[in-house]
Amino acid sequence: MSDNVAVEQEAGGGRRGRADRGGGAAARRAARSGGGPGTQLTYIKRQIPLYEVLGEEGLALIEANADTVLQEIGIEFRDDAEALALWKEAGADIKGERVRFPKGLPRSLLKTAPPVYTQHARNPARSVEIGGKGTVFAPVYGPPFVRDLDGNRRYATIEDFRNFVKLAYMAPSIHHSGGTVCEPVDVPVNKRHLDMVYSHIKYSDKPFMGSVTAPERAEDTVAMAKIVFGDDFVENNTVLTSLINANSPMVFDETMLGALKVYARHNQACIVTPFILAGAMSPVTVAGTLTQVLAEVLAGAAFTQLIRPGAPVLFGTFASSISMQSGAPTFGTPEPSLVSYGAAQLARRLGLPFRTGGSLCASKIPDAQAAYESANTLNSTILAGTNFVLHSAGWLEGGLASCYEKFMMDVDQLGMSQKFAEGVDLSENGQAMEAIRQVGPGSHYLGCDHTQANFQTAFYRSSIADNNSYEQWQAEGEKSASQRANELARRWLESYEAPYLDPAIDEALTDFIAGKKNSMPDAFT
Amino acid sequence: MSDNVAVEQEAGGGRRGRADRGGGAAARRAARSGGGPGTQLTYIKRQIPLYEVLGEEGLALIEANADTVLQEIGIEFRDDAEALALWKEAGADIKGERVRFPKGLPRSLLKTAPPVYTQHARNPARSVEIGGKGTVFAPVYGPPFVRDLDGNRRYATIEDFRNFVKLAYMAPSIHHSGGTVCEPVDVPVNKRHLDMVYSHIKYSDKPFMGSVTAPERAEDTVAMAKIVFGDDFVENNTVLTSLINANSPMVFDETMLGALKVYARHNQACIVTPFILAGAMSPVTVAGTLTQVLAEVLAGAAFTQLIRPGAPVLFGTFASSISMQSGAPTFGTPEPSLVSYGAAQLARRLGLPFRTGGSLCASKIPDAQAAYESANTLNSTILAGTNFVLHSAGWLEGGLASCYEKFMMDVDQLGMSQKFAEGVDLSENGQAMEAIRQVGPGSHYLGCDHTQANFQTAFYRSSIADNNSYEQWQAEGEKSASQRANELARRWLESYEAPYLDPAIDEALTDFIAGKKNSMPDAFT
Repeated sequence: MSDNVAVEQEAGGGRRGRADRGGGAAARRAARSGGGPGTQLTYIKRQIPLYEVLGEEGLALIEANADTVLQEIGIEFRDDAEALALWKEAGADIKGERVRFPKGLPRSLLKTAPPVYTQHARNPARSVEIGGKGTVFAPVYGPPFVRDLDGNRRYATIEDFRNFVKLAYMAPSIHHSGGTVCEPVDVPVNKRHLDMVYSHIKYSDKPFMGSVTAPERAEDTVAMAKIVFGDDFVENNTVLTSLINANSPMVFDETMLGALKVYARHNQACIVTPFILAGAMSPVTVAGTLTQVLAEVLAGAAFTQLIRPGAPVLFGTFASSISMQSGAPTFGTPEPSLVSYGAAQLARRLGLPFRTGGSLCASKIPDAQAAYESANTLNSTILAGTNFVLHSAGWLEGGLASCYEKFMMDVDQLGMSQKFAEGVDLSENGQAMEAIRQVGPGSHYLGCDHTQANFQTAFYRSSIADNNSYEQWQAEGEKSASQRANELARRWLESYEAPYLDPAIDEALTDFIAGKKNSMPDAFT
Repeated sequence: MSDNVAVEQEAGGGRRGRADRGGGAAARRAARSGGGPGTQLTYIKRQIPLYEVLGEEGLALIEANADTVLQEIGIEFRDDAEALALWKEAGADIKGERVRFPKGLPRSLLKTAPPVYTQHARNPARSVEIGGKGTVFAPVYGPPFVRDLDGNRRYATIEDFRNFVKLAYMAPSIHHSGGTVCEPVDVPVNKRHLDMVYSHIKYSDKPFMGSVTAPERAEDTVAMAKIVFGDDFVENNTVLTSLINANSPMVFDETMLGALKVYARHNQACIVTPFILAGAMSPVTVAGTLTQVLAEVLAGAAFTQLIRPGAPVLFGTFASSISMQSGAPTFGTPEPSLVSYGAAQLARRLGLPFRTGGSLCASKIPDAQAAYESANTLNSTILAGTNFVLHSAGWLEGGLASCYEKFMMDVDQLGMSQKFAEGVDLSENGQAMEAIRQVGPGSHYLGCDHTQANFQTAFYRSSIADNNSYEQWQAEGEKSASQRANELARRWLESYEAPYLDPAIDEALTDFIAGKKNSMPDAFT
């Protein structure tokens, strides 16, 4: 790629300069039109304490049990001779595809994994720190369906994909463009990843995720990232964070291992996540689920360090329970919250960044069920100290549908979480003693100097909530939250302006995609 | 009252015997009819840690500032010469109605207030411990309107009042019958309290709250409690917990002081609660609001100990922010959560039981806004370690309306909170190592012994959520959560059976009410 140097310089220029201005202009224009998204916020740097459900005794017990699982039961690495060879070389016991680990081996391998890493965005102002006191919100990932703005539930298209990237780009408290914000089912399955990665680069300047559905698609993602960031930059930094699910219980399969190896080799981050519907894929108890989650993460995350010591890797969990009546997944219930809190503690003890949660729900529509379940999930996600939050916005139907209205409502909740995470201001202004003196008993604070001075920033201002009187709400058409969210999504999409992308990079990307697409026939399964 | 001894014995008998059986039969009947409320749970004994937003430094700062407010600005005790005389005698500085407190006086007076007390119910199985690790859920309090099961928003009636008492009686995770579950606007205002207190006694066997709208209505409440529990029992125990709001900023008025004095004199519990819309009734910051709340509670709660040392008193907060655009109250936003967490810490340091929170929202309908806001409030309420939770269920429109559908949805969430508060089971069964061994890699846990053995109790089972497939949900009529809640409320009300009440007590109560009602003309304002 002879144009790579030029591309890299342009990308750098774009990242420091015009890209940022483009976003700012879009935000200002949207703000002028009313109900605009407002100022972009950087990722959350939590100033609040953590909530921890387990004490030392419980944590030590679960860790010892996970070690037992790894030693005695082991984990299967399927259809991947290289993985088995690497584990054998590292000292593990291999029988068929079953890998059993000497006590302490995975933990010892993980000492090279960074507790915090930077994922670079093409706009440096949008780069994020993943780990430590950082919390990064990324949108919904994976749904084949959308619930659209006309109230239809239908297969998702690339147009929907672009729309969700645009909305996430505009949302002040979404810090990351995510990955498969919906499945663009209208694009052939073997070419889809090209359009998805391109959309993240073209329509947003926030960091994004890579394709994991085949090793060659992961390679394509890395190649496209190199067009944007330059070869050397990509090899020596992290510009992709991608989702590697364990096939629970206790299996990693060929597809996930293939993608993991590509990303780790290029120093790109993997989120090793046991995808758990407790009661089906893990024991029906919280402690049992945490034990299995820890064992699976230890094996999968340590494997990244066999590929490339120092490659960033996250401790992921996706925790749901199943309905013991129907077998259907349930969300926002007490047990997944307990799992998330406990897993976050285990991750911190392991020194790995932690991913869980989001705005999960089982509801088919953006109604009260959706909101209760999402709020319960998001509250535990924040207080657990989660570093990377997938499915932060738009998730409906247990992840089968990306919903525009839900997306907008969740974005509002993310803003609240971000404000909450600032904690209590104990400055002299925060203490407000002069205001108390000025007002005194029996008066009110509405017009006092302190209130006037803090008017704009004092309280979080919801973009969705209607706090007016019943009569005014009635006069304005008795709209529900989802109706207001619908209107807001339309306004945002109308006012969207793409961030600056250097035309040379854009052309290199479209050339790369065209070449790849021409090299293979369409596949739809 | 010459029949008091007999009444007391009967009440005792009823409390230990038939009352409990009556409730059990109603629950079983409802359960058989499908969607019944299930087994009554006792109040929550939290087995989870507390979440605390403030460190020692912040707490000490707010406490010092509150002391300054009490010393330098003071609190007004209005239209109550007795209160001023008592404060003067206790060593406070009185100027007009303004009371300024020597440093440490309120704290010192509060040393006689119990950190935990038992509020007795007429069914001893429903008595609650308020304080410590206990959390007690009580329903919505105060709305003049209802949103009924036909979707109408209208003035509340005594029939609505009885219905909410019945629903709270049946709800497994509502531990307290509450007080003004709605305002029965069809009953004259000066006689309303008699019908309200009677309804709590007649249609429920859970503990309840007393009237605070006039001293004589508080006296009537105590008199009715004595008919149920006996004179001596009431004087030496606590059978009422009642709500005394400060008139913030920094005022207690005649009405509230009058009711407080009645209850404290009879050893009944008062919840001293600054009713705060921050930005109007307190400073526009969290730390400033906490300072004023603490000062007001210190003054009001200490006053109960001037009336009767040892009388139970709670540290209450009702925290909302106002919209800086419209002045309307907002709920479920970050700032009130921070206030609740901080106030809970201040209450613990003061050694008083703590009241806040519930399922608060500003929405006019039981939609996603209502649910997000309520869930945010309830999550902070639980994790703060709140002991008495008012407005746990049914609150809508910033407290202007009691909503049947919202009530049922909130009850479901209360059940989740109660399950969450059990924490993580670390027993051998909870660890589930045998299950992990039995299942092994690549299989599933659906049919394994451990799952079968824990099938019934493993996961919280929602009474409202639809977790089925989209297709099944569609086939069942595409119902929203509020529609399902509507159906559930109707089923519960149909299957309601009153708990046993001794006929002699019932007659004594109705005689008392008739005598009182005949002694005065109807008043409607």
